[in-house]
Parts: sequence; C-alpha cells; structure tokens
Amino acid sequence: MDNKKELLSRHVKDVKLKKGMSVRELVDSQREIGGFSAQHMIQGIDILKEMLDDKKSFNFFSFPADIIATGLRGMVADSIKHFDAVMTTCGTLDHDLAKAYGGKYSLGSFEVDDNKLKEMDIYRLGNIFIGSDQYGLAVEKYFTEIMNDIYKSKDYKTEYSPSELLREFGKRITDPESILRQAYLNNVPIYCPGIVDGAFGTQIVLFSQDHNFKLNLLKDEIELSNISFDNKTTGALMLGGGISKHHVIWWNQFKGGLDYAVYITTASQYDGSLSGARLTEAVSWGKVKQKAHYTTIDGDITVILPVMFSYLELF
Amino acid sequence: MDNKKELLSRHVKDVKLKKGMSVRELVDSQREIGGFSAQHMIQGIDILKEMLDDKKSFNFFSFPADIIATGLRGMVADSIKHFDAVMTTCGTLDHDLAKAYGGKYSLGSFEVDDNKLKEMDIYRLGNIFIGSDQYGLAVEKYFTEIMNDIYKSKDYKTEYSPSELLREFGKRITDPESILRQAYLNNVPIYCPGIVDGAFGTQIVLFSQDHNFKLNLLKDEIELSNISFDNKTTGALMLGGGISKHHVIWWNQFKGGLDYAVYITTASQYDGSLSGARLTEAVSWGKVKQKAHYTTIDGDITVILPVMFSYLELF
Amino acid sequence: MDNKKELLSRHVKDVKLKKGMSVRELVDSQREIGGFSAQHMIQGIDILKEMLDDKKSFNFFSFPADIIATGLRGMVADSIKHFDAVMTTCGTLDHDLAKAYGGKYSLGSFEVDDNKLKEMDIYRLGNIFIGSDQYGLAVEKYFTEIMNDIYKSKDYKTEYSPSELLREFGKRITDPESILRQAYLNNVPIYCPGIVDGAFGTQIVLFSQDHNFKLNLLKDEIELSNISFDNKTTGALMLGGGISKHHVIWWNQFKGGLDYAVYITTASQYDGSLSGARLTEAVSWGKVKQKAHYTTIDGDITVILPVMFSYLELF
Amino acid sequence: MDNKKELLSRHVKDVKLKKGMSVRELVDSQREIGGFSAQHMIQGIDILKEMLDDKKSFNFFSFPADIIATGLRGMVADSIKHFDAVMTTCGTLDHDLAKAYGGKYSLGSFEVDDNKLKEMDIYRLGNIFIGSDQYGLAVEKYFTEIMNDIYKSKDYKTEYSPSELLREFGKRITDPESILRQAYLNNVPIYCPGIVDGAFGTQIVLFSQDHNFKLNLLKDEIELSNISFDNKTTGALMLGGGISKHHVIWWNQFKGGLDYAVYITTASQYDGSLSGARLTEAVSWGKVKQKAHYTTIDGDITVILPVMFSYLELF
Repeated sequence: MDNKKELLSRHVKDVKLKKGMSVRELVDSQREIGGFSAQHMIQGIDILKEMLDDKKSFNFFSFPADIIATGLRGMVADSIKHFDAVMTTCGTLDHDLAKAYGGKYSLGSFEVDDNKLKEMDIYRLGNIFIGSDQYGLAVEKYFTEIMNDIYKSKDYKTEYSPSELLREFGKRITDPESILRQAYLNNVPIYCPGIVDGAFGTQIVLFSQDHNFKLNLLKDEIELSNISFDNKTTGALMLGGGISKHHVIWWNQFKGGLDYAVYITTASQYDGSLSGARLTEAVSWGKVKQKAHYTTIDGDITVILPVMFSYLELF
Repeated sequence: MDNKKELLSRHVKDVKLKKGMSVRELVDSQREIGGFSAQHMIQGIDILKEMLDDKKSFNFFSFPADIIATGLRGMVADSIKHFDAVMTTCGTLDHDLAKAYGGKYSLGSFEVDDNKLKEMDIYRLGNIFIGSDQYGLAVEKYFTEIMNDIYKSKDYKTEYSPSELLREFGKRITDPESILRQAYLNNVPIYCPGIVDGAFGTQIVLFSQDHNFKLNLLKDEIELSNISFDNKTTGALMLGGGISKHHVIWWNQFKGGLDYAVYITTASQYDGSLSGARLTEAVSWGKVKQKAHYTTIDGDITVILPVMFSYLELF
Repeated sequence: MDNKKELLSRHVKDVKLKKGMSVRELVDSQREIGGFSAQHMIQGIDILKEMLDDKKSFNFFSFPADIIATGLRGMVADSIKHFDAVMTTCGTLDHDLAKAYGGKYSLGSFEVDDNKLKEMDIYRLGNIFIGSDQYGLAVEKYFTEIMNDIYKSKDYKTEYSPSELLREFGKRITDPESILRQAYLNNVPIYCPGIVDGAFGTQIVLFSQDHNFKLNLLKDEIELSNISFDNKTTGALMLGGGISKHHVIWWNQFKGGLDYAVYITTASQYDGSLSGARLTEAVSWGKVKQKAHYTTIDGDITVILPVMFSYLELF
Repeated sequence: MDNKKELLSRHVKDVKLKKGMSVRELVDSQREIGGFSAQHMIQGIDILKEMLDDKKSFNFFSFPADIIATGLRGMVADSIKHFDAVMTTCGTLDHDLAKAYGGKYSLGSFEVDDNKLKEMDIYRLGNIFIGSDQYGLAVEKYFTEIMNDIYKSKDYKTEYSPSELLREFGKRITDPESILRQAYLNNVPIYCPGIVDGAFGTQIVLFSQDHNFKLNLLKDEIELSNISFDNKTTGALMLGGGISKHHVIWWNQFKGGLDYAVYITTASQYDGSLSGARLTEAVSWGKVKQKAHYTTIDGDITVILPVMFSYLELF
C-alpha cells in the first residue's frame, strides 16, 4: 500500500435506484458506493462465488442455532447442496427437528415482559415466540420416534459419531425444508462438536441410559482431520461465532489455512473474543491463508444472507 | 399482551428464494421469516410507506455526514423530494460540496496503516479514502466561489440562518447529485444546528472575519418550533444518532411527539447514550407518541437503506 | 514491528488480588495482565497522567450529556480545574442546571414499559428515571431566573458567545457540584457548538424573542481557532462521540493534531461513523499527531472513568 | 411498577472521590451514581455476594478461553474454591496447560499487520501475542507427558468423561496458578461439553488413535442432570456467551431455573443470538427463575471482573 495513485484508483460513485430493480441489479449498483458494511457484503458475495465455482475447493458452511429458529431455515436447507460439509450447534438440530415435526414458531418482539411469557408457557428467542409445546415436546417426540426406528433397524451399530447419527435422522425426516433432510439427500455431513449442548443432546443422554448406545465424538474429529489433510483448497462461509466458527477454522489450520473465508458477525473485537475476532486475526494463526480471499461482514445475518444467497442463486 | 393465541398467531415461514427475484419480491418473501433485524427492517419499510402516504404528515429526514461520504449521497439526494425537511450535520455540507466541486472519494479499507496514509496525504473515513486535495481544498474553493456570489448578489442580507444560507448554496450548485441542490429544487429546508462543526462552519468563520456576515441560528429554531406547533401529524426517518437525530425528536416533543418514526442505528443502549436509545425511550419523553408507529432497526445504513429505498421507490 | 523479540518482550502475568486493595494497587496489579480493554484503560491512565503533567499542553475535556445525568456529574465537576477547556453538548447544560436547581434524578431500569412511564410523567434516560417536573420545568425556571439577572446586570452585552453566556451562568449558580459553577470558579471556558439542541437552547430561543439578545457562535469558533494556533502542544480526554468529540479533534487539526488523546467509546468502527472511528483514523486527517500518545478505550464511561479519575486523583 | 413515588425513590447522588480510596470504597461510592453499566456491575456484586453466602446454593462459574489467555487466569484460578462447578471451553484447557508448562504470552496490540505476525510465527489473540512455540508445542508436550502418566497409572480406566480426565490433569499439574490445578485441589469439577474444539481435544484424538482410550461425554451430562435435580437452589456467574453460558442455563432449566445469575457480556441482543440474549430472555424459558436475583452486565470482563472479585475478596 505505498502507491497513492492505486489507493485512490476506485472512485465512489453515487447510486441511482430505479423501478423494479432485481436484487442482482441493486447489489451491482452498489459495487462502487464505498459503503461501509455494504462494501464487505459485496466482497463476500464475490468471494463466495469464486469459492463455490472452484471445483477443487472443499467448502464448509457453519452456523449457530438462532438462524434456524427463523425462516432462514428453509433458505439454508436449500443451499446445503452447494457445500461439502456443515458445522453447527445442537440448537440447530432442536429447531430443525421441532419444525420438521410441525412445531410452529411465531413472530414476536424483543420488548416484552418475559415474566408474562413464562406464565403463558411461551419461550422467547430474540423476537421469536415459541409455544413450549411446539419445541421441547416436539423434539422429544420426534427424536424418540426416529431414534427407536434407528435402534430397531438391522443396521443399528451401538456406537455413532454425531455426523453418522444425524445422517440417520436425515434419512427418516420427511420435511423437505429440513436441514438434516437436505444434508442427507445431498450427502453432506453435518458436524456438531457440541452436540450435547441442547435438547437433542439431552435426548441422546436419556436414550443412552436404557439402550445400548454410545456417542463417539472422536470419530468425527478424525474425519475433519482427514478433510484437512486431503484437501489442498478449502473454503468456508461462517455465520456467527462460537463453536461452529471456531471448529471450522481450527481444523483448517492443519492444512495451512482456509483459501476462501466469509464471516458474518455482530460481535466486536475489542474484548478479545473468538466471535469478535476479524478473519485477519486467523491469518496470524494460520487458520486462514495469507493469500486467502476473505472478508468479515459486520451485521445481522437475517438482513445480509437473503441478499447474498439471492444474488448467488444458492437455492 | 395477555392473549396467548394472539401472541402466537403469526407463524414463521421458511423463505424460498428463486431466480431473478426483484428487491420487492425478496423483501416480501421475508415478511414471515421472523428474522431478527430483518423483521424490524420490514416494519420500517411499512411505517415509511404509511408516513409518506399520509399527506397531512410533515416528514423529517435526518442523517449524519458519513453516509454522504459514500455513494448513498446520490440516493439520498434523489429521495429528498419525498420529505418536508432535512436535519443534518456540518460534515454533510462538506462532503456534498466537495463532491459537487468534483472531489473524488475512493474505495478503501479499514485495515491500513494510518501513518502511511498521513504521509501520502490521504484521509480515511472508515473504509473510504480521500485525497486531501479532493476535500478540504475543494470545500474551501467552492464555498468561497459561491459565498462571494451570494455576497455580491442584490439580495444579500448580512444575516442568515443556516437553512437560508444552505438554500442560497443549493441555488448555485450545479451538480444534480447534490443534496443541497435537490433540497433547493424541491423547496425542502435543510436544518443544521451544529453547522459550525466542520469545514463549512470554519469557512463561515473565516468569511465573517472580513465580511459583514452574521449567522443566526435562533431563526431556524423558531422555524422548527413553528413546524412543531403547526403540524398535528409528523414523521421522521432518522439515520444514525447524534445531533441530527436528537434535534428532530427534540422539537417534536412540543407537539406531543412524532406519529411515525424509523431509526436505523448501530449503537447500543446499555451506555445510556442518546444514539443508543431505542425509540421506545423517546416515548417516555413524549418525543414519540405512545400510539405512534415506530421501529428501531439495528444495522449498517449502507446495507439497509438501499433495500428500503428500492422497495419504496424513493427516487 | 519487525523485531520478534521485542514484540514478545512484555509477558502477561497472572493477577493476584489481596485484601483491602486500593484502586491504585488494583490498577497497578493489572499492568501486565494483557487484558483486552483493561490494557487500553491503563494506557489511557498513563497518557492522561503525562498530558496533565505537561505544563505546556492545553488540555480539552469533552463529554456528552448522558454522563451528566448520572452521579458522575460531581466527579466531572471536581475534575474540571485540571483541564483548560470543556467541550460539550446542550444536554449537559440542561442536566447541570436542573440538578443545581434541586432536580432529583432517580435510579431506574432499562427494562420497563415506557408507555407506563409516560403516563406517570417519568422520563427515562437509559436506566435513569426523571420526574418531568425535576427536569424541563427546573431548567426553565432556573434559566429564566439567572438569565433575567444577567439581563438586568450593568454588564449586559446584548450579544454573547456560548462560552461567555455559560460563564455568566456559572457565576450565578450556587451548587458546588455544578459543572458550570466549577468551570467558572476555575476559569475554564465551556464550548458548546450545538448549544441550540436541547432545553437550554430552547430557553435561549424563547428569551431572544422578547429581549434584545443575540447568540454569537462564531466568536467561540475564533477562540478555538486561536487556541489551535497558539498552543504547540495540546491534549484531550474525550468521553463518547458525537459533536463534542468531533469539535475537539476538528480544531486541533489546524495545529497539526493533538499530542495526547484518550477516547472512551462504546461505538463500533465498522459503520464508518465518527463516533466509532478509532483515534488512529484521526491520524490520517492530522487531527491526532503521528507521534501523539493516544488510545481508544472501548467501554462504558460509568465503569471506566471512576477508576481512572480515582487513580489519577483528579478531584 | 405502578407506583410513581417508588419508581423515583432512590436518588442519583454525585460521586466524590478522595485520596487513596480502596476498591471497596470506590464501588460503594458509586452505589447511587445511577451509572449505566456501573449500576449493573454493582447489582452483580450484590447478587454474587448473596449467592456465595447462600450455603444451600450450588454455584456454577462459566467462562470462555480468551479470558484465560490474559492474566485473569491467576485470579480465576484463585477464585475457583468459592464455586461448586466450572463450565468452560477447550481453549481454556489449552491456555491453562500452555502456561502451566511455562509458555509465555505477551502484551500486544489489536492494530498490527497479521501477515507480518504470521511470518514471525506469532499468534494474535486480540491484543495478546503468543509465540507459536509457547502454545501449540507446549500443549502437545505437556498433554503427552501427563496423559502418558495417567495411562501408566494403575487406576487407568480406558474411558473418561471430560471432568474425570481434567481432574487427572489437575492432579499432575504443579503450577499453583493453574485453573485445572486449583479445581483439583478444591474438588471442583470442570465440565467442558465442547472439549474436542481446540488443542486439548486434538491431542485427545491423537492419543486415542494408538491407545485404548475412550471419551465419554454423556457421563458428564448425567452428572449435570443430577446436579440439576439434586439442588433446589443454584446460581451462576457467567463470563461471556457461547457454549459455556448456554450449557449452564440449559441444565438449570430442568430444576426450574437459576436462583442467582450474573452474566457479563459484550454481545448485543438485536441479532437473536444466545450470547446477546439478556438473562430476562432466559426467564421465559425457565432457565432463570422469575424470582431469581439476576443481572446482565455489558462490558469487557478484563475491566469489570477485577473490580468485582477485589470487592468480593474472591481469592
């Protein structure tokens, strides 16, 4: 960055809107607006396009549970076939299962009296309301139903890695909007290193208490290790921080880092948190390559992702 | 909020994307996603539509300067005709004037060595780079040129309120993408209570030192007071916090509060700041009516506003 | 930063707490904790110490209004004698006047129903509750009382800059906890470029309508310009963003930038806002010197400032 | 909240600082400042005091890894004896082990060129620098040394829950500043539901490939389930979000929720994330009791925790 001319070479242009614009036209019209997060969003779109077009790249898609509580679940499910592996948290399984069983989540509000909600047996997840019968009970029933079916099948193995178990669930779920279902149909493994942390995990615990069932987390780790060593080129779209982000970049360090990385977050870096860390910090660790194409987009996934996926036609 | 059935009545629906979607289709497809900020963005769109359709409503549009450093400047300029008054900061005048004079702003990056930029005479505004000659000098030259023309005109008054002065500037600026120009052409006053805080203000100071020129801030305040007392119905789209937000809600308290209010911000409320305060806090002050239609949207304006304005066809 | 040894030279040490620690001992014990914001807080303390010890440095203290709504008002008032100029917003005057008149502010909560507060005539400022009679009416009465006294005095001038007017108020306020009072007693000018934006400003407007009174903002700007040109060395403690921060760094650019700068904020930089901009961005503009000692501390002022002022014995 | 008098009963008082104040005096002087986060910090202190004084309460302490990279590690280690269980992430084990082995972490900076750090084999964690030989290699060596010792001991079991394994490590670590050590010495179990996500986890994977070793996560879950069912009264101090926070509140829902809860975070709630969710949201889920004493403190742990622990004499 020593060439002034070059630094000042791409000029900000005033945006002009017009009637009936498509999402693609709108985004393209913003390519030179020099917007703050908008510029990163457009970089993210371009990096994702390159990553998904790179046939040699093994591409991860990571996300936490809250996204799956929203209607982005359907959009995420539809997009899974474009990725090679999913990394997520237990809550994703809970919401996916509850919804696949017919559980209804409702549009709510952040500004409510949670005591009153408690008295009405309504759970609040941000500005989403969930009747308690639409969630915990739904997960319990559907889990038990499917798990018993797995147990009774002639292929039952007594020991499962999370990805193997989730594949068996995907095989049996019928809802086409389900993430587990789409992952199964498209042969995309779902890794879930913190699988015990939620309703699905608690159900596994309960099931294991009176059935011959073991959970083998290390097996998935070996698979992830193999992915890291087998793929010279890797990429990741990471929604939100926490364990689903960290576990993607963690394993990618062993191959010298991700080649493509797009991270969308609302977290700040000043507190030293993994969630707040920009991807550039991951470069110092070798979790993202120095020459990688990467960008961190600050903002709410529910606003940004639909624009990105619509532009990229990830459905 | 005591009716459980009602609280759970609007169900979250999975989004389905499709090829070639228009912005309008994308937004409408998200109406039931129960997205976190997305839900607020859609509420904001609906409130703005209602507000702009309400012919009796006097509508404010407030924004700070950084937005005008981006290419949103053209979009904002095009939309001004839909509002009744603008409230902004001195920096808006600076960027608008610099650009109207031909100043070029460039797409840059947050992650650079500011010492190196300093040595190359490049100013950084977030991820926008500005060659020093494209800004300060441009403002100085264009200000002097126009101000001298005002001074020599037969209508010269020796004392100006900010809105009167900005109107004279708008009359003389030729760039159709200019906010001052579009405000003039559409007879929309621009209020700027902190007009001394920037290059435009410093130029006023310099000009006043060797010319018979007085700045009368109180006159604009009386105008704002009259707007408050004359309009039973008022609304506001407020981008970002600070003085431009506060001055809109401040004057609207004297009429019992805004009837429509949409606020887009990245600030947090926990620190008690005016910028972080949700609009609901303004209800306690009578700055927003209890029955007003209002929403606070968390997020970056450069991502959110193009979607909103495109949907609303504000151009 | 090319010397690895040097980059790794200051080791993180585990903190040990002990009984009855003084604030000074606690802070000193944290000097090597490598804490995220804690490290910046300690840098800030050290820079402030150096700045206040530098007898040649002209030192600004800027802050917004919300801080003055809290009990930090007394602490800020006590510290003013250590600075050479104050930069603030209209709301500071409002809260200072209301409290000097006996207005009571109360400990409240963020999580309340603002509609109910409205019905009880309680204003909410973050988690502070203010009975409406403790604020607006108090400001109105005390302003009128003092302003009439100024008007009737033999020194009445018909035209005042904000700093001149605030000095006259400080002369007449009796509350020793008052910021205006302490500034007057210690001969520290208070600059307020956005003085019209609040209750004090509205009172000025009303007073000017039936009295011979003019507000001259440009005069204060000339004073600030002179400060910039007369002082080779300058420093600033800036609490929060907005106009009070910007106006300090704005005028300091004309002398080549601040030599000492400490900025405490909760704002994020990703949205390109002035409030979110780290001080390093100001280096590119020449508002902070390249060789300046400066730091940006992320966090809530009500938690950080008492520790800093206690350590520095700024009372 | 229908009684106006009561809502306005606790008045904000101006703080007065004085020479040589102790931390306790400083905090106590702030009890009536009505500070924004300061008020929550003080509530947090009071709730923690009550919780730790309640002999019937089973108290959790949860935290993520980044805190342990700082010198707060020693402070956290010293405080563990005051709690009944620890919930944390794999990174905590990594940093604790690396440091116990003599690894040196260094005070760094957020604003550096991560490419240069990479070339010098320096990892960056926020503003902490870590020479690569001080971390990964240290963890590997010390893990192997201790794990081999466990393997060779006559009590070796072939299958371990994370808490059992960590107890064996604590038994063998000699560094008194170590969290694992102090937990062992004080008989406090460390739960780590995402134990595979980091260096310690990877070492387990490697070890298990050529040794007869199984990791049993479900066993710890059953223990947590028992804690939930056995303890009528529970409390938690939760630093930061993610899996360590969620797993504490998750299990506490089965007993009707936490009775005491203090959560310190920098995350925002608007994005619907678990990390950003205020504790009041957890009330709707029954993860925190309606009548619980709880507060959410926004801010950086490295600034807030030393003040709290010093006040509470948690050492």
